[in-house]
Amino acid sequence: MKVVTFGEIMLRLEPEGYFRFVQVDKMTSTFGGGEANVAVSLANYGLDAYYVTKLPKHEIGQAAINSLRRFGVNTEYIVRGGERVGIYYNERGASQRGSKCIYDRAHSSIAEAKPEDFNWTEIFKDCKWFHLTGITPALGGNMVQICIEACKAAKAAGATVSCDLNYRGKLWTREQAREAMTEICKYVDVCISNEEDAKDVFGIEAENTDITGGKLNKDGYKSVAKQLADKFGFQKVAITLRTSINANRNNWAALLYDGKDYCFSKEYEMYIVDRVGGGDSFGGGLIYSLLNGKSTQDAVEFAVAASCLKHTIEGDYNMVSVDEVEKLAAGNGSGRIQR
Amino acid sequence: MKVVTFGEIMLRLEPEGYFRFVQVDKMTSTFGGGEANVAVSLANYGLDAYYVTKLPKHEIGQAAINSLRRFGVNTEYIVRGGERVGIYYNERGASQRGSKCIYDRAHSSIAEAKPEDFNWTEIFKDCKWFHLTGITPALGGNMVQICIEACKAAKAAGATVSCDLNYRGKLWTREQAREAMTEICKYVDVCISNEEDAKDVFGIEAENTDITGGKLNKDGYKSVAKQLADKFGFQKVAITLRTSINANRNNWAALLYDGKDYCFSKEYEMYIVDRVGGGDSFGGGLIYSLLNGKSTQDAVEFAVAASCLKHTIEGDYNMVSVDEVEKLAAGNGSGRIQR
Amino acid sequence: MKVVTFGEIMLRLEPEGYFRFVQVDKMTSTFGGGEANVAVSLANYGLDAYYVTKLPKHEIGQAAINSLRRFGVNTEYIVRGGERVGIYYNERGASQRGSKCIYDRAHSSIAEAKPEDFNWTEIFKDCKWFHLTGITPALGGNMVQICIEACKAAKAAGATVSCDLNYRGKLWTREQAREAMTEICKYVDVCISNEEDAKDVFGIEAENTDITGGKLNKDGYKSVAKQLADKFGFQKVAITLRTSINANRNNWAALLYDGKDYCFSKEYEMYIVDRVGGGDSFGGGLIYSLLNGKSTQDAVEFAVAASCLKHTIEGDYNMVSVDEVEKLAAGNGSGRIQR
Amino acid sequence: MKVVTFGEIMLRLEPEGYFRFVQVDKMTSTFGGGEANVAVSLANYGLDAYYVTKLPKHEIGQAAINSLRRFGVNTEYIVRGGERVGIYYNERGASQRGSKCIYDRAHSSIAEAKPEDFNWTEIFKDCKWFHLTGITPALGGNMVQICIEACKAAKAAGATVSCDLNYRGKLWTREQAREAMTEICKYVDVCISNEEDAKDVFGIEAENTDITGGKLNKDGYKSVAKQLADKFGFQKVAITLRTSINANRNNWAALLYDGKDYCFSKEYEMYIVDRVGGGDSFGGGLIYSLLNGKSTQDAVEFAVAASCLKHTIEGDYNMVSVDEVEKLAAGNGSGRIQR
Amino acid sequence: MKVVTFGEIMLRLEPEGYFRFVQVDKMTSTFGGGEANVAVSLANYGLDAYYVTKLPKHEIGQAAINSLRRFGVNTEYIVRGGERVGIYYNERGASQRGSKCIYDRAHSSIAEAKPEDFNWTEIFKDCKWFHLTGITPALGGNMVQICIEACKAAKAAGATVSCDLNYRGKLWTREQAREAMTEICKYVDVCISNEEDAKDVFGIEAENTDITGGKLNKDGYKSVAKQLADKFGFQKVAITLRTSINANRNNWAALLYDGKDYCFSKEYEMYIVDRVGGGDSFGGGLIYSLLNGKSTQDAVEFAVAASCLKHTIEGDYNMVSVDEVEKLAAGNGSGRIQR
Amino acid sequence: MKVVTFGEIMLRLEPEGYFRFVQVDKMTSTFGGGEANVAVSLANYGLDAYYVTKLPKHEIGQAAINSLRRFGVNTEYIVRGGERVGIYYNERGASQRGSKCIYDRAHSSIAEAKPEDFNWTEIFKDCKWFHLTGITPALGGNMVQICIEACKAAKAAGATVSCDLNYRGKLWTREQAREAMTEICKYVDVCISNEEDAKDVFGIEAENTDITGGKLNKDGYKSVAKQLADKFGFQKVAITLRTSINANRNNWAALLYDGKDYCFSKEYEMYIVDRVGGGDSFGGGLIYSLLNGKSTQDAVEFAVAASCLKHTIEGDYNMVSVDEVEKLAAGNGSGRIQR
Repeated sequence: MKVVTFGEIMLRLEPEGYFRFVQVDKMTSTFGGGEANVAVSLANYGLDAYYVTKLPKHEIGQAAINSLRRFGVNTEYIVRGGERVGIYYNERGASQRGSKCIYDRAHSSIAEAKPEDFNWTEIFKDCKWFHLTGITPALGGNMVQICIEACKAAKAAGATVSCDLNYRGKLWTREQAREAMTEICKYVDVCISNEEDAKDVFGIEAENTDITGGKLNKDGYKSVAKQLADKFGFQKVAITLRTSINANRNNWAALLYDGKDYCFSKEYEMYIVDRVGGGDSFGGGLIYSLLNGKSTQDAVEFAVAASCLKHTIEGDYNMVSVDEVEKLAAGNGSGRIQR
Repeated sequence: MKVVTFGEIMLRLEPEGYFRFVQVDKMTSTFGGGEANVAVSLANYGLDAYYVTKLPKHEIGQAAINSLRRFGVNTEYIVRGGERVGIYYNERGASQRGSKCIYDRAHSSIAEAKPEDFNWTEIFKDCKWFHLTGITPALGGNMVQICIEACKAAKAAGATVSCDLNYRGKLWTREQAREAMTEICKYVDVCISNEEDAKDVFGIEAENTDITGGKLNKDGYKSVAKQLADKFGFQKVAITLRTSINANRNNWAALLYDGKDYCFSKEYEMYIVDRVGGGDSFGGGLIYSLLNGKSTQDAVEFAVAASCLKHTIEGDYNMVSVDEVEKLAAGNGSGRIQR
Repeated sequence: MKVVTFGEIMLRLEPEGYFRFVQVDKMTSTFGGGEANVAVSLANYGLDAYYVTKLPKHEIGQAAINSLRRFGVNTEYIVRGGERVGIYYNERGASQRGSKCIYDRAHSSIAEAKPEDFNWTEIFKDCKWFHLTGITPALGGNMVQICIEACKAAKAAGATVSCDLNYRGKLWTREQAREAMTEICKYVDVCISNEEDAKDVFGIEAENTDITGGKLNKDGYKSVAKQLADKFGFQKVAITLRTSINANRNNWAALLYDGKDYCFSKEYEMYIVDRVGGGDSFGGGLIYSLLNGKSTQDAVEFAVAASCLKHTIEGDYNMVSVDEVEKLAAGNGSGRIQR
Repeated sequence: MKVVTFGEIMLRLEPEGYFRFVQVDKMTSTFGGGEANVAVSLANYGLDAYYVTKLPKHEIGQAAINSLRRFGVNTEYIVRGGERVGIYYNERGASQRGSKCIYDRAHSSIAEAKPEDFNWTEIFKDCKWFHLTGITPALGGNMVQICIEACKAAKAAGATVSCDLNYRGKLWTREQAREAMTEICKYVDVCISNEEDAKDVFGIEAENTDITGGKLNKDGYKSVAKQLADKFGFQKVAITLRTSINANRNNWAALLYDGKDYCFSKEYEMYIVDRVGGGDSFGGGLIYSLLNGKSTQDAVEFAVAASCLKHTIEGDYNMVSVDEVEKLAAGNGSGRIQR
Repeated sequence: MKVVTFGEIMLRLEPEGYFRFVQVDKMTSTFGGGEANVAVSLANYGLDAYYVTKLPKHEIGQAAINSLRRFGVNTEYIVRGGERVGIYYNERGASQRGSKCIYDRAHSSIAEAKPEDFNWTEIFKDCKWFHLTGITPALGGNMVQICIEACKAAKAAGATVSCDLNYRGKLWTREQAREAMTEICKYVDVCISNEEDAKDVFGIEAENTDITGGKLNKDGYKSVAKQLADKFGFQKVAITLRTSINANRNNWAALLYDGKDYCFSKEYEMYIVDRVGGGDSFGGGLIYSLLNGKSTQDAVEFAVAASCLKHTIEGDYNMVSVDEVEKLAAGNGSGRIQR
Repeated sequence: MKVVTFGEIMLRLEPEGYFRFVQVDKMTSTFGGGEANVAVSLANYGLDAYYVTKLPKHEIGQAAINSLRRFGVNTEYIVRGGERVGIYYNERGASQRGSKCIYDRAHSSIAEAKPEDFNWTEIFKDCKWFHLTGITPALGGNMVQICIEACKAAKAAGATVSCDLNYRGKLWTREQAREAMTEICKYVDVCISNEEDAKDVFGIEAENTDITGGKLNKDGYKSVAKQLADKFGFQKVAITLRTSINANRNNWAALLYDGKDYCFSKEYEMYIVDRVGGGDSFGGGLIYSLLNGKSTQDAVEFAVAASCLKHTIEGDYNMVSVDEVEKLAAGNGSGRIQR
């Protein structure tokens, strides 16, 4: 089953363990990015996942491709050219000290891509699902236009389109985001958001919710989901629910609304290994679930279990199998040794 | 005080930190195995601990021996020969993701050992205690026969015999285990088990217990201990009690039954560094305690404190001193810095 | 704003992660020490922090200097000479196993320094604050005399003097400490202590307190602070309040008494990355706060937030900015990712 | 251009740097094997390289596949099943101390494969070249038969067949090798050998040659090449010429005989980073050259330059591009920085 | 003695050992750059070395500053602002495989600096020497203008000006270089070049020289030096002479022409640890020598010995003392252990 | 066969690779020392090697013991007590930059040992050989006296005594060395020296020799050997012959004089991995050879081959087997891979 995701893949430079940037002279150098992370999730679930981006011809660009191939992502549509691989520096937080992310992604090959770089007709041939996020159009240059063209082509090819709003205030303003995402969402079938993104991008708010702590406000989340669905006619809206106790401990759950039912997943109390890519792994789990015809409740349980496991895994990519996710979704979260 | 343990020592290959197998190109390469772990514990407590096994003549076999010598285990009875050192690949779990263990131990030198490889009479000369586990006979080939011969010789030499049931479903069936362990247990004075092993090996069950969570069911554990003791005439039966909250947090306690009293240890809430060898370190603590004439209550407190500390230490081996264990058993578990 | 701290800087040798000393053949080799840690804190807050000590002329001495320069500490008053850099071996604890510290600091250059090594008049020119701890006079040799001379010179130059009692039983006896610290405290304006140090050094005790666990005994701490202030005429007394749940989890708060008000900070529940230097980072935060005219309540909140963050950072030094501390003091301790 | 190679891929466990096996508790864990190494070379040169083998279903088997995918090898024909991934332990030599290799490859999935595991008709569809080595039939079990079937199917599909004699005395006897290779060589078009293999496998010898040192004996090599070609009707015979000065310094050249001309490459004096896979990288270079219609002289120059570069690269795989090889073959071996 | 250097400092990302870019997921992350390297050399020789550049306000910019402070460089004139720290990826070569350098330095803070960012009058107050290289004006934007302003201000302040031509074809064309450097060289007293740079930048050539190998062509180098001196009226011209045998072995010498005498240094045969910064360390040695009144012969011997030692040291910076350089210049190059 | 060596074992702290002391924040922490190195050599050759020293009771002392036990050295005579483990910091040289060694060994437990710490009668029971070096008496305190007592006891027990002069100018003066070694040599049967030590300790010189380079001066070495033998009545005198080309390349040979014949070994050209312990490994090889009755020529060949291999091995200890040494002594130094 062919699925396509589109966006940037960046070099992730990170001090090991809990060291701060200014303390180290060695960093892990892996690759990741919202949409690439979804592609790896889908490849790990056995789908024919294609990633579309633009990367320089040099070895750092090649290393990004290799990181995708290694985990089974098809990279044949990746365009080579441009000047640089985008970078993000990440410093892992602990306890009361949050993780810190420094972007160095301006002027990357994908941010400076041109519409004619991508042959969307060929890319979406036989494609069942297309996923992008709000980060891709935020990259600047021609990316809003390119994203819209991609969405149109995906719809024309009969693919379902999903989008994670993923607002990044360091990349564009709320106004820019609202204008672009309003256009893109016309083509979207499945929308993924959290409470903050819904507010930042579309000004959609629920009452009585405190994102830095506290208990889930179920009615508020339902309200956000319904407002989103009503505004754009989404078939499904997923709202992820993160409660940050501290940098080592988060609670995690989600709501999936299918136009009729509001299905809340169970909530997981997580000891975090790597927080980055947590939302993307939800998206990957959700796409897999819906492509495989799971019910709304089962789909949200699979997606949340998948992203719960992601928080225990190093790097952007969620390295889990369908079997592992289903075991957790079915209730085995005791972390016992398997031997 | 001479003590002998017998079994396999394996190469343990493990990604560092919380990386998954498919993410790494470097692994820690240490050694361990249920009975070897007990030998190191006992050497660390100052006993004359001998380890008996069979290892190839090449350098990997030698490295296994060196890992034992380094911590004071006497390796003079180790037989050299055969083809390979058994391996287990271990992947550390976190939060809801359990640890994963892949065995590659078939065809190891010890699994293909012959009865004539071991001169039990010499081995048990002046020996006070012999320890083995249910893993050793499960290795296949002649190992059931060899274990029985060893037990007989140990008894003949006047040694106390202890056995940890340690059922491994990947190595043999419940039926094979029951047949072999029924024979071996005839020679056993001190039996160590947990609730699952008692059920898997001998079908002995307590009521109302949920091993994946929940509170201790004290009466159930007493029942298991008594059934085991009654069935084989064990002098003492120890039941370890693990509650797995998640892969990072376990509670840990034990019951020791001496035919008269049922002594429960205090329960520890543990932040886990390395879960492997947790049960073995209990065995090591128990043997030391009983060899040194501790009371039933003191013995179980020492054994549980020893294994609580093991969970904070990297590798299979429990690297703690009698002094450290006794301090914890006496109540100092606040983890304050010692300077 | 020129501030001066004085003491030893040691090489810190430490197994990585949670390995024990006897398991490793590689150690991190960083530098630290109570007063040096305060100097780095102050440099990170933007003050002109000078560190005064004595170090050998060889490259290990130079590496110690470089570790200070790297983080902006002025090292121009450091005297070169003598035989060795003091060392402390540190083993990180986990859960019920406490950290272990082995000193190898006798005969260091600073421990064998002579009064004429230091030109205090020049050192304290234009200096606003002088900080030392009870470790420095405990180093032996001429250090009590040298500390007293330094204090006198600092007062003569118009600097405020702060002292952290920091009793180290491995370096001197309670009697030696009491005699020396009684003399030094005559020159001290701001005293930092915890409950144990107050008792060990001056025999000052509060009632009803259990340092290894339990709840804060507010009246007891007030009593200790007042007794200290009354005895020596300190302008301010800070009492740090640590509750050690286990080696991975501590609660942390403080009291600051200004002769009139007793201001307790909020209490933080911490997941510990590196416990060493926790108290020093409190001192650094307090000095910065008081030099910048913060109120008693704000000062203690800043100092506790600073040291809370220190517990999440590798190494002796507290690598945080004023901005980061103030955000936490203002209430954002959820550890959310910053991107 | 589709090319197929067939054989074992093993886990390579190796101490870092120049440490000996008994000194380490960490090893690099990469993958490699004669035929897999050729596949990676060919993928790096831009060919559609397929690797055929059998690997267990578990994560270690998956990691082997990922190592191939990462560098662009197509793994779709790899069969999953069996018990274990073969292992070789490798210790890097230096100066007078040679590298040491310990095999632990018996009972691997491929060694226990069955003829029906492989659908050769499908595998060789549209295939232009098939490469195997003398290691594959030496694995035991059904492998001789399977190799012969593969060769037949390759020829039937119109592919050119190349074989590197690669005699491994630890896997089979000279007699076994001669019998099997005599049969296999009936289907071989291009034979790769060194002087020792020609002698060990077929008893073919040249006069006056000393393999442990000294100068090239050109006439002797020509004689070996001609005897091999005459015996089996090979279209081309390549003889690699290694002079081992010590473990850090080797000289390296080759002869390619096309039935008419004897073309010797230039000789390289190499500082060795990783010696393993040196011969395989020659094979990869030769196949690429011949598939691209290079002249006999150009082909041997390309193949030798490719393998010269391999000796400077860590791991089994030769990570070089056509462009890099051609630059060296054209004469730029000064190792100047490229910036 | 105050000396100032001006240019870019970059993050250097490099695979460890001899791994290629596409093989690693960890890289060393140090800092360096032609002029920064000279500053560190001079600080290590005991001069008051100031480095001038522009760096972002974030932690990666701070880490660059810390790397300079650590080794004693004064960073007070470094301007904070702009978007990014320039990066160069470096892959270490071996034997016939040359090192590979990928620049990702466009849009760095210094490349986008404005003339008003630098207060040259203040910077050159009491300054004795100003050093820059041909890389700095090549960065684009306003950098040619800024360099000229800096040179003028340095001359006005009475400083000697040195410049290493350092042509980088990836940053600008020969024509751009010639135009800018012709202007800059008007202010230069001491010119450093190699044969290639003299040709690339000014079209100045000697006859009969082969840069990729072979013997020194002394007359040719003299000719280049004299042509350079005559064209711009340099007081001194230094020509570095590198013979690249392979990536592990280079020969290294230099010529210093003082308008009267042509002094050739002795030639060193080097086993290379890190080739980067080799030329910069020559510049550092030369500036130190000339500032300290060494004779032309002694100056070139010191500079060449300094850079010979640099080739044995990891990273861009030359970590050697005056004493170490002088010992080598005096003839002790046997590399015997010092204990 | 019981052999005893006596001296200090130190913690060796060393930057990895070719980093300088001031560049790192991690060091390898292994153990070694002249006499301990000999003990490990002998254990590796299968002898019952006992090491005698004094070490503190803490874990760093224990780690030193473990490093010996790991490689089979019997540690039962090691005395526990005193304050510290001696340390040496070692920085690896390259090319023209020599290794640098900083001692921090004063006040170690062994340096402050008392004569009554050692029960020499028990230690030398059934002992065949006793080895010490000139470093041990140089440690100060009572060590000269203790060494003399040890030698007397060894002779009384019938052991052969060997001594490596090993002059260390950082530990004592030539005069102190001469006085002490003159006394100790009265008990020595086999003396090991190099040309410099013979001169430094006893003023014995040969003519026409340049130790920093050049060719072997055979007559000179014979003269030194004969003078030493004549002066003290040694049965055998070995002179090691090192030619240091640079820090990466040394030539290595030796002369053994048995009172009648002067046997020179072949000379090896070595690429050095770790130079430390090179001389000690010669001593180990020589003792093994002589204990096993090898001829004078064979003995010196074995000893030189053993130490040639040591130079390829990380750490102080020579990790080679009798078989490996004999293969090299027999002429196989081509460093070919063994598989």
